[in-house]
Amino acid sequence: MKWQLALDRMSITQAVEMAKSAGPYADWIEVGTSLIKMYGMESVRAMKSAFPEKTIVADIKTFDNARYEFAMCFEAGADIATVMGAAPAKTVELCARTAEDYGKGYMIDLLNVPEDRIEQLCGFDGAILCFHLGKDQQEHEGTRFERVKAGAFKHAGDGLSVALAGGIRLEVLPELMLHRPDLIIVGEAVTKAPDPAAAAKQLSDFIKSRGDEC
Amino acid sequence: MKWQLALDRMSITQAVEMAKSAGPYADWIEVGTSLIKMYGMESVRAMKSAFPEKTIVADIKTFDNARYEFAMCFEAGADIATVMGAAPAKTVELCARTAEDYGKGYMIDLLNVPEDRIEQLCGFDGAILCFHLGKDQQEHEGTRFERVKAGAFKHAGDGLSVALAGGIRLEVLPELMLHRPDLIIVGEAVTKAPDPAAAAKQLSDFIKSRGDEC
Repeated sequence: MKWQLALDRMSITQAVEMAKSAGPYADWIEVGTSLIKMYGMESVRAMKSAFPEKTIVADIKTFDNARYEFAMCFEAGADIATVMGAAPAKTVELCARTAEDYGKGYMIDLLNVPEDRIEQLCGFDGAILCFHLGKDQQEHEGTRFERVKAGAFKHAGDGLSVALAGGIRLEVLPELMLHRPDLIIVGEAVTKAPDPAAAAKQLSDFIKSRGDEC
Repeated sequence: MKWQLALDRMSITQAVEMAKSAGPYADWIEVGTSLIKMYGMESVRAMKSAFPEKTIVADIKTFDNARYEFAMCFEAGADIATVMGAAPAKTVELCARTAEDYGKGYMIDLLNVPEDRIEQLCGFDGAILCFHLGKDQQEHEGTRFERVKAGAFKHAGDGLSVALAGGIRLEVLPELMLHRPDLIIVGEAVTKAPDPAAAAKQLSDFIKSRGDEC
């Protein structure tokens, strides 16, 4: 299992600094949607240029204009870009095709996608399917992982690549890892920790220690 | 009825130039999603600073992190920001509240939103409801307005503010205007015209000439 460090609600400089201190413990670095919408592709370019060997995920949350947005991310150095599962079917399809054309990866964000549509999206077998509890949902409903867990439990193991995201912290990892996700996405539990590098190391050590179980 | 000039897939400089030449004929100027994702809030700041008197719409297509993204747009000078109707209910609610806090407007983009959810979103009576045929949908299914027209026809006139968007050009205006939308959003029919200013003027003249009918 890999884990991805999500960088949000900070400046590009702060994000690069955070990636320098906490990033070495993470498998992948995510340039969060808030950075892309605040600074544009410069945020992706800066991250890739600082960490050319690292897998960089551009959380662009494409909902339309698939080819243009995905090309923009890959040209800026992203290795993986995200599309919303709630987007039109054609958009998801074009994102998949664009990623393939560039020889890059893509993640389908299942935030607020109904179960029957999730079933269809499982047909994209080159995708990482991200079961995601949104920031706004967390803030108002608490960090309840029932839905993401149910989704992961149902779909993990049938050859799909499954990610879990949304308010994930060390304490919930043992439970989430039972569902054997391929990727865990962690943001503020690291970036808002008193010592982000230490928090990232702790997370990394925990995942490694469970390595043979998942 | 107002019309909004949508600026997409160009540099900030080109967008400001386009707004200078074609913008005077439009009621509102939209900084498109592609500009925001490519250049960040600098695109919104540049447009508002060049046209302080104009209503600037930031098509940020928020899907999560409502307060942060909407505040970002309004702080950068946007008068109106957009949220996806397919986003979690809490996100739409927080966008509405943030717009209210800032004394600004918001538009709910109904791209790929099921009819039953549209019914619920009609409860946001301070919103502009945008019936939207996506770029990717247009490219592959053609510019068929049946769905957006059906939506607008059903909901216009019951006190809601209704916008229509997606591949709209002068030739389809007579038909679309029968449904008496409050706002028509036009992008490439102007920006890709041989003479964008002339195309914008023609659109504006046509709308004015029908003024007493809608």
